[in-house]
Amino acid sequence: MQQLIQAVRSLIPLTSKEEQVIGRLFTARKYKKGSYFLSEGAICKYAGFISKGLMRFYINVDGEEKTYGFLQEHQFISNYGSFVPRIPSLQSIQALEDSELYVITYANLQKLYQELKHGERMGRVIIEQVFIQALADLNSFYTDTPEARYRKFITEHPDLGQRVSQYHIASFVGVKPQSLSRIRKRILHQGAKDF
Amino acid sequence: MQQLIQAVRSLIPLTSKEEQVIGRLFTARKYKKGSYFLSEGAICKYAGFISKGLMRFYINVDGEEKTYGFLQEHQFISNYGSFVPRIPSLQSIQALEDSELYVITYANLQKLYQELKHGERMGRVIIEQVFIQALADLNSFYTDTPEARYRKFITEHPDLGQRVSQYHIASFVGVKPQSLSRIRKRILHQGAKDF
Repeated sequence: MQQLIQAVRSLIPLTSKEEQVIGRLFTARKYKKGSYFLSEGAICKYAGFISKGLMRFYINVDGEEKTYGFLQEHQFISNYGSFVPRIPSLQSIQALEDSELYVITYANLQKLYQELKHGERMGRVIIEQVFIQALADLNSFYTDTPEARYRKFITEHPDLGQRVSQYHIASFVGVKPQSLSRIRKRILHQGAKDF
Repeated sequence: MQQLIQAVRSLIPLTSKEEQVIGRLFTARKYKKGSYFLSEGAICKYAGFISKGLMRFYINVDGEEKTYGFLQEHQFISNYGSFVPRIPSLQSIQALEDSELYVITYANLQKLYQELKHGERMGRVIIEQVFIQALADLNSFYTDTPEARYRKFITEHPDLGQRVSQYHIASFVGVKPQSLSRIRKRILHQGAKDF
């Protein structure tokens, strides 16, 4: 819980009483590797904070899973497009490692906005961050070349190369796994001029 | 200005002193038909409220303008993906009619968040709405069929059929203008069962 308190404290000031409010409104939940934080067609029940682990976001396109993002420890997670309007999700969010989250329901999040003096500011700032990241991810997903996607992966997630399987990295980059090493070699070769 | 006050008042309570703060921090701006609220490559300077007129959002794909959204009177407008992080916009926003907006700069918006008692809540709620709409628009833009796009247009903008040119409707639907009437006929034909 201390990690979550720290993350909130980086956005707004908190009294010790307010820390207790956070402790009361969030619940600890564990997700086994391979299990789902959110499945396609379900309504996203929680917003969460990842204290340990790794999650991937994907959409199903004609039966094929297309990975478009990763979130890891110390990041906030939700699918606001389902969580806020209470509509079925087009996306899935799956644990790639045994993960531990602190989660909050929509109703309790509204309480949190009210009970913390700067709760609304916290909400506004988190949504801004999530929104901007989601827009950038979606635009990149649909328009970037595989090379640009691979650069995005190693720039935004420099520590994930060892934690994410080649299969899921390839899905994120938008190529078959066997094409990934070719892209990697090409980028390493260009590395000296471009990085 | 009264329309903007009303729109804010539908989200949060406002004192008459706070109405004056809104009047002080927003500026009236006019956009001639064809002129730009935001050009690709520029940093989005304003968030705004449309008191009169109509705007279209588009991206440039290999030299072709692809329209992905419309906003009209009584709606809030910005490209948060450029406005908040202060980075160049990938999108353009153009007036399709002579339009009148009340706009606010990023710095003044931060003041507004602080000076209104419920300013942060207002900001949070507006961003939630914009975010959810943007996600739905982008997902539709990239994955929906032309038929689904045309249904989206007439459902979300039932009054715009007469105000938007066939050219721009076709661009939104994702077809050549000459294909639009075929889609329209097909949908009218199906109308009895599906609507």
